[in-house]
Amino acid sequence: MPKKVDHHQRRVQLAQAAVAAIDAHGLDAVRLVDVAQEAKLTTGAVMHYLSNKDEVLLAAFDEVCARTLMRLGGAVDGDLVDLALSYLPHDADTTREWRVFLQFWGRGVHDPAFRARHRVAYETIAEMLRIDLAARNVSNASTVADAMIAAVDGVAVRVVMERDAWPPARIRATLSALLVPLIADNRAPAGATGCST
Amino acid sequence: MPKKVDHHQRRVQLAQAAVAAIDAHGLDAVRLVDVAQEAKLTTGAVMHYLSNKDEVLLAAFDEVCARTLMRLGGAVDGDLVDLALSYLPHDADTTREWRVFLQFWGRGVHDPAFRARHRVAYETIAEMLRIDLAARNVSNASTVADAMIAAVDGVAVRVVMERDAWPPARIRATLSALLVPLIADNRAPAGATGCST
Repeated sequence: MPKKVDHHQRRVQLAQAAVAAIDAHGLDAVRLVDVAQEAKLTTGAVMHYLSNKDEVLLAAFDEVCARTLMRLGGAVDGDLVDLALSYLPHDADTTREWRVFLQFWGRGVHDPAFRARHRVAYETIAEMLRIDLAARNVSNASTVADAMIAAVDGVAVRVVMERDAWPPARIRATLSALLVPLIADNRAPAGATGCST
Repeated sequence: MPKKVDHHQRRVQLAQAAVAAIDAHGLDAVRLVDVAQEAKLTTGAVMHYLSNKDEVLLAAFDEVCARTLMRLGGAVDGDLVDLALSYLPHDADTTREWRVFLQFWGRGVHDPAFRARHRVAYETIAEMLRIDLAARNVSNASTVADAMIAAVDGVAVRVVMERDAWPPARIRATLSALLVPLIADNRAPAGATGCST
């Protein structure tokens, strides 16, 4: 069914162009023509798939979330600090995704549709993390997953807002300080303090 | 010097009105007339102090940061989890401040002036926290301060975006999971694992 494949590929291409356009122009300033330019298509061709600006933004949001979930799915066996680091801005793609994502938070404050989308995405990420944590014998997986997500989001804000003040060593030190004792505390037998006796 | 006092009071009044107006209308949609309405003044009177929209936004940002620093200054003796909780959205004022703050992050992505302001504010908060942590015999105070700030910011995102899914118990559990072992790990003698033997 080549037609269906083209249709899907075109949607992915447009979503990626939307992410790039939002990164370049800002979520509020971006226009359909910017997305068309990034995708090397006419505005009419874009509008065949994304008929208004809200659809552009939501496609970009879904694209960023899909990449995040792919990253999570591909990293189940590694160290948890490394897993968390893989989410943070560390290359052109992840930096772009976070720059776009922070703007979605701002938008979500006043837009219930974005908040709803955001919530579903975070619930999916948290559920995948809980499964991963349980497989690593981490108890209290719901709270640990919430804590890990908060740690990543909180560090990401600093990295996006103060890029040159957050070299990799500071990012790793901050995440390690938060996550290493968190995991140790929740791997020990029930009621323990993190000490293996 | 009654005139100077009035001038300062008027600035504070306008900054508070700006925060309220941004919360009500959104950072992008807010206009000077909305600030005037919140402050119960004419637009002309507002423009005597804040001559354009960027000045309104920066005044609001400074007001939110000033309140955060006041909160930090007033809570040095309490438990660190309680201190962190006092920053998070928990009443009308703090909820409003965070709703406005998240929009500043989105704005900061594309606006160097906001990023610079943000950076100064975070450096001030981190410095106050480092002094507090050192007074509590917490070593590694720079990293612990970075970690605490990240934890608070990360949880705040969830609370703002998923208000009804984050009751006080979930907020406290997440922050405690992050901060209690973090502090324990950095209170112990050098090289220790968090166990007092």
